[in-house]
Amino acid sequence: MATGKVTLLSAGPGDLDLLTIRAARLLASADVVLLDDLVNPEIVSLAPQARVIRVGKRGGCKSTPQAFIQRLLLRYARAGRHVVRVKGGDALLFGRAGEELADLRRAQIPFEIVNGISSGFAAAAGLGISLTHRNHCPGVTFITAHLRDDSEPDWAALAATGTTLAIYMGMSRIDSLCAALMSALPHDTPAAVVQSAGSAAERHVLAMLDTLEARAHAAGFGSPAVILVGKVIGEAVAHAMHESVADVSIELPSTSHVQRYEREAVLRSA
Amino acid sequence: MATGKVTLLSAGPGDLDLLTIRAARLLASADVVLLDDLVNPEIVSLAPQARVIRVGKRGGCKSTPQAFIQRLLLRYARAGRHVVRVKGGDALLFGRAGEELADLRRAQIPFEIVNGISSGFAAAAGLGISLTHRNHCPGVTFITAHLRDDSEPDWAALAATGTTLAIYMGMSRIDSLCAALMSALPHDTPAAVVQSAGSAAERHVLAMLDTLEARAHAAGFGSPAVILVGKVIGEAVAHAMHESVADVSIELPSTSHVQRYEREAVLRSA
Repeated sequence: MATGKVTLLSAGPGDLDLLTIRAARLLASADVVLLDDLVNPEIVSLAPQARVIRVGKRGGCKSTPQAFIQRLLLRYARAGRHVVRVKGGDALLFGRAGEELADLRRAQIPFEIVNGISSGFAAAAGLGISLTHRNHCPGVTFITAHLRDDSEPDWAALAATGTTLAIYMGMSRIDSLCAALMSALPHDTPAAVVQSAGSAAERHVLAMLDTLEARAHAAGFGSPAVILVGKVIGEAVAHAMHESVADVSIELPSTSHVQRYEREAVLRSA
Repeated sequence: MATGKVTLLSAGPGDLDLLTIRAARLLASADVVLLDDLVNPEIVSLAPQARVIRVGKRGGCKSTPQAFIQRLLLRYARAGRHVVRVKGGDALLFGRAGEELADLRRAQIPFEIVNGISSGFAAAAGLGISLTHRNHCPGVTFITAHLRDDSEPDWAALAATGTTLAIYMGMSRIDSLCAALMSALPHDTPAAVVQSAGSAAERHVLAMLDTLEARAHAAGFGSPAVILVGKVIGEAVAHAMHESVADVSIELPSTSHVQRYEREAVLRSA
């Protein structure tokens, strides 16, 4: 029997129309779909012909072991199937794509990778800001708050780069990471938490490093969410303050700026 | 007359099917399309109804001033048009989206942002590697080699983070940036240059920091290209060496790993 192939497919941050055209086409040709927990479950509507296997691994919850997921990938591919492994955001940013790709190489199973929109980019779109405005920073760093041994990254070294920080998996230690960053950055460095970026449920809080934790908790934010830190976030803060709609920004979904501006126009004319 | 709106739209790295579904839908409803130089020109086929204005700004060449582009955005939006401003990669990573968004805010013109695939992600897909394998690094930094005053970023500070570096606009100073990085990182740190990532013309070289410039120049690589530096690139280097197909990786397009593996299978059976 001919060997099948594996597509490592990025589902983007949430809304299905944020998938790439290529991703949608490949889902339509899948025999087997292996689906992560954090992916919008409606994505299966794009692969009605496929066998769907849910293989989520939420932190702290009952989960599918990574080794089992990798065995499934190999088993179905060796049986000649087109296996589409679906990951949230971009498959190549965090997650365990590296291990899965190494396995596929060792087994000489053909694979292709389809990129997607990571939630850090969607979060910036929701705030209406560039991640790298040249007046404020030389770039952006995507960083996990939980290293392999569960320790934290070197926040002082990250702050020293002057790049915007897009922090993933940070909500469970937002207090300690903000404190660590304040030892290297001004306490009034603009910051934001964006929850469910790139989906209809998107919400955000804008604050400074020394008020971010309190604001995020007051708003009831939890995991998963992206934490953004850096001067460039001030473009969103300044905007919200200028417009006197900070509360609107905090409490209402922010996915569509067109809708937001329409809402603001209503407020202004009221 | 009712005010129109502006869509800041990310065209992705090249291939049209790497656009998001949302981007394709919004192009089909555009009245006016403002198109950057580095965007695949075939994208206009997705907006046959629109007036297309090319507003490229290639470094060192005759170009459209940024201020004029921003005036065009405002003029057409105020005339009630749906203006789609198309940028390569993701609109929020480098480029001048920050200035354009500030202008739109000041003018109270409704806008929305549609994310896309930046070439750094496409480059990693082409190499078949994660940008952030947890065995190698805590994250990835996207950095420009040319700051606003044309100076270089603080390479030592960037190296100290241990993150993978995805360096944009770096080809014209690849010699000096590799030298600077070697003062902070081992000379044999894996590195790559990927040209035309995410398009049919994609090519890459794999090397170490101390051989990258020579290999890239020997292969005739120029701007624009993404330079990737970090231990995670070793996953691609190790693979190419193990398979003894380093020359294939260097000289042939690498967009589709399925095709690449088929080619390798042919080599193995020959």
